[in-house]
Amino acid sequence: MRILFVGDVMGTVGQTAIDEYLPKLKRRYKPQVTIVNGENATRGRGINQQVYKALLTAGADVVTMGNHTWDNNEIFDLIGEAKKLVRPLNFPAATTPGVGYTVLKVNAVQLAVINLQGNVFMGQNLANPFTTVQPLVDELRQTTPNIFIDFHAETTSEKEALAWYLDGQVSAVVGTHTHVQTSDERVLPAGTAFLSDVGFTGPYNGILGMTRENVLERFLTQMPTRFNVQEDSPAVLSGCVIDVNERNGHAQKISRILINPDHPYFDD
Amino acid sequence: MRILFVGDVMGTVGQTAIDEYLPKLKRRYKPQVTIVNGENATRGRGINQQVYKALLTAGADVVTMGNHTWDNNEIFDLIGEAKKLVRPLNFPAATTPGVGYTVLKVNAVQLAVINLQGNVFMGQNLANPFTTVQPLVDELRQTTPNIFIDFHAETTSEKEALAWYLDGQVSAVVGTHTHVQTSDERVLPAGTAFLSDVGFTGPYNGILGMTRENVLERFLTQMPTRFNVQEDSPAVLSGCVIDVNERNGHAQKISRILINPDHPYFDD
Amino acid sequence: MRILFVGDVMGTVGQTAIDEYLPKLKRRYKPQVTIVNGENATRGRGINQQVYKALLTAGADVVTMGNHTWDNNEIFDLIGEAKKLVRPLNFPAATTPGVGYTVLKVNAVQLAVINLQGNVFMGQNLANPFTTVQPLVDELRQTTPNIFIDFHAETTSEKEALAWYLDGQVSAVVGTHTHVQTSDERVLPAGTAFLSDVGFTGPYNGILGMTRENVLERFLTQMPTRFNVQEDSPAVLSGCVIDVNERNGHAQKISRILINPDHPYFDD
Amino acid sequence: MRILFVGDVMGTVGQTAIDEYLPKLKRRYKPQVTIVNGENATRGRGINQQVYKALLTAGADVVTMGNHTWDNNEIFDLIGEAKKLVRPLNFPAATTPGVGYTVLKVNAVQLAVINLQGNVFMGQNLANPFTTVQPLVDELRQTTPNIFIDFHAETTSEKEALAWYLDGQVSAVVGTHTHVQTSDERVLPAGTAFLSDVGFTGPYNGILGMTRENVLERFLTQMPTRFNVQEDSPAVLSGCVIDVNERNGHAQKISRILINPDHPYFDD
Ligand SMILES: [Fe+2]
Ligand SMILES: [Fe+2]
Ligand SMILES: [Fe+2]
Ligand SMILES: [Fe+2]
Ligand SMILES: [Fe+2]
Ligand SMILES: [Fe+2]
Ligand SMILES: [Fe+2]
Ligand SMILES: [Fe+2]
Repeated sequence: MRILFVGDVMGTVGQTAIDEYLPKLKRRYKPQVTIVNGENATRGRGINQQVYKALLTAGADVVTMGNHTWDNNEIFDLIGEAKKLVRPLNFPAATTPGVGYTVLKVNAVQLAVINLQGNVFMGQNLANPFTTVQPLVDELRQTTPNIFIDFHAETTSEKEALAWYLDGQVSAVVGTHTHVQTSDERVLPAGTAFLSDVGFTGPYNGILGMTRENVLERFLTQMPTRFNVQEDSPAVLSGCVIDVNERNGHAQKISRILINPDHPYFDD
Repeated sequence: MRILFVGDVMGTVGQTAIDEYLPKLKRRYKPQVTIVNGENATRGRGINQQVYKALLTAGADVVTMGNHTWDNNEIFDLIGEAKKLVRPLNFPAATTPGVGYTVLKVNAVQLAVINLQGNVFMGQNLANPFTTVQPLVDELRQTTPNIFIDFHAETTSEKEALAWYLDGQVSAVVGTHTHVQTSDERVLPAGTAFLSDVGFTGPYNGILGMTRENVLERFLTQMPTRFNVQEDSPAVLSGCVIDVNERNGHAQKISRILINPDHPYFDD
Repeated sequence: MRILFVGDVMGTVGQTAIDEYLPKLKRRYKPQVTIVNGENATRGRGINQQVYKALLTAGADVVTMGNHTWDNNEIFDLIGEAKKLVRPLNFPAATTPGVGYTVLKVNAVQLAVINLQGNVFMGQNLANPFTTVQPLVDELRQTTPNIFIDFHAETTSEKEALAWYLDGQVSAVVGTHTHVQTSDERVLPAGTAFLSDVGFTGPYNGILGMTRENVLERFLTQMPTRFNVQEDSPAVLSGCVIDVNERNGHAQKISRILINPDHPYFDD
Repeated sequence: MRILFVGDVMGTVGQTAIDEYLPKLKRRYKPQVTIVNGENATRGRGINQQVYKALLTAGADVVTMGNHTWDNNEIFDLIGEAKKLVRPLNFPAATTPGVGYTVLKVNAVQLAVINLQGNVFMGQNLANPFTTVQPLVDELRQTTPNIFIDFHAETTSEKEALAWYLDGQVSAVVGTHTHVQTSDERVLPAGTAFLSDVGFTGPYNGILGMTRENVLERFLTQMPTRFNVQEDSPAVLSGCVIDVNERNGHAQKISRILINPDHPYFDD
């Protein structure tokens, strides 16, 4: 099974990049399943019905989220129904709408897609991602060894720790949230593919995609400033492709995808 | 001018990697100056005289530091004398021994090497890196346009912000601290080379180079655990090469270097 | 010299308490100078011209601020002119409007009032309060030994540390920001009056004066919620009175004031 | 039922204060149960067998802990057996030795004593205190309405929020951890006694009980410094007395106790 994963789509720049490149990437890599992180899809803050549907139309099979899940209030209109929308598993169990994972039929087998959030420097007090995900993984493995985790977290230590913790138990742990792709893709010894952060999909000339002027003003003046998506910018698209042996769920290979003005896409 | 920069050398695994690969990298890339971050060089925590000298012997022209500068008490034996050791510029001015930058003669010109630390999530209250580095850059540019900054910081936002802030004023802003290399190397529009994090040089199979067992225990139990360098591991070496036009200080190119068991070094 | 200091006035509940009790407190304690923290005065977030003037009319001689200084945009209409408004001294020097201290004539002598902000857990990267305030204190003491500091900070450690650091150099270090009065008022050995936090002036039945329902929702759901001032509540007024020997600036006594439904005000 | 609670006993200064004043306080207030926080009892960091037994001998019926629970490794020698030692309930359930609450027989009724830790700014990732304590309170109330909670937390907002959340469900929520007593003791409308922080028991002239010189050095230099208990200091003892109606568990009254050189103890 081949999985294509694309990092945090941000605003119209990100959506346009998805519309343009996702079909091309699918033709080239022929993934059986495509997962897209959408926590910044609607104007940089959360997601709404229209953009969620647009991502599905563009080719996403599952949309994962993160700490910005609730930033756009319109999410409450769709989260109860949206079967392909997955928010972090370790949000408070009793009060959080939506689901923390979904199981897809891919080829003749099943793939579970989990969204999980880190705790270090994330500004929310969530259930421990390690001890929360372990029983779910145990349960899912009764059904399928093919498990993909979008681990939305800040620090490289928490990301590496989770990947080693689950090595051999899941097919992939791929990080999101920093909006910058790391180059540490590897398959760990027991068969779990890992990449600290897949990077984001949005304005190449913003600061994490936000307007440079406003972000710099905050660092310089320490005053509250309003950030917006840096719309007047070419796009970056960040992703990765993972090949999984469906019989045992072990990853065989993970490769990064990075398209931006310095690394343009070529149809070979 | 070509600059070779190697990220956080960690413990004997990192030192051994330096001894093995630094000569090879110098033969291949022929840098005129080599900068090595040494904040974790002595058993993962700070640096002492012996390891500092070993890094110089292995080929470093300058050794930069970071938040772990003071972790090994033996640094106080050398920091007053060590002309090639640079600790973060924005440590408290009145009380901090050592220097925050140094100026080297490279070819017929001068290169200033600045070490700077971020503030977001770094657990120390330092002077604002933006407003602290700007007057120094102004002053240095009276003498030379060739300025390299090792920006030791946690978040991608602070790193991107500093690079855009100084774009055109310095030759390069390269991040350290996360121990994971990012793949976002680029030359910004006004001529500053940027890489969010160059990555580290040490055990490939630790968690940020530390013993997996102990780091995982802390995430699972939330008890204090003692971390040590994961010595029983092959090495990763992370670095980058930057070409600078000496006449105007503008970067022409930045390329990443990554050597590990999944990306072995080959003498072509 | 007797100084009356009243903690963070919050919303209309706080303003009403000021209007009602400040005249009574002045009649009873006969302070020569009255200082009021106003960082939450306008609807819980910052201050505007109207409320600033109302606090002066009600009897404040100086209005101090804190981390919420910029929450109400209308402050920019007044901060350039408002001679009695003092924002934290250690905000970025180059870009911050307003002043970090003011000097008043009280009796025949001068009193300097400084507003200073802590760094630990305050979410802003400000200049080190210790090393920033020391040169100002040195300078002010050329003119007057009578110096009052409103230290707006979160942790008891930073507050106690600053008070001991300045003991004998200033007349008083009184904390604000936690909105809860502490009972540790004392005069330190070298003559500086200290109180970790004077407490706030606003709704007695909110959570730090904010609507209980919304604050609890955030703790329970970890979702972003909008906080408002809990207006349907009786008031608390928190303050202290400090007696200073004007000749040497040493505090002679510090006493707390706390008025709330459990400790009602009685005109004896 | 009358409960006496004494805050964080720190080092030999704190232990000596306990030995001297606890018998006197018991004679004066005649509590039926005495609870002492001991997280800093052994040299300021954690607790060991000897000091735990000394606290019981001095008159404690229960010893509560906090974020420093594991700082002294000797705790592992006793925590399995020590029936009167209670560590935070919301430590990781699967891996944490010891218990998060205990039930005592007091008079003819039962009193449950819970230790709970906050999450905001506490540097550990624990289970949400609100959602973790609620089911335990529900369960305990099947047996007894008399429930005392030592809520070990940093921020006044989390403390006030928990108290309002549990108002009417427990007899008392009393905070510890900041080492500074607050003056906001009250009985909330539905019958829960509340005090944000009871304060600590240890050196009056340290910074939170630690050596001033070392704490100041850290704030000034931002270098790691080793803190020790400020042993050459008179003592402060901080506590409170709560009267509970045993039939419905409602608090009738809460009064603070503060003994220090500025408020000496007098046997009237
Ligand atoms: Fe994002
Ligand atoms: Fe995020
Ligand atoms: Fe570091
Ligand atoms: Fe490092
Ligand atoms: Fe406030
Ligand atoms: Fe504040
Ligand atoms: Fe404590
Ligand atoms: Fe504590």
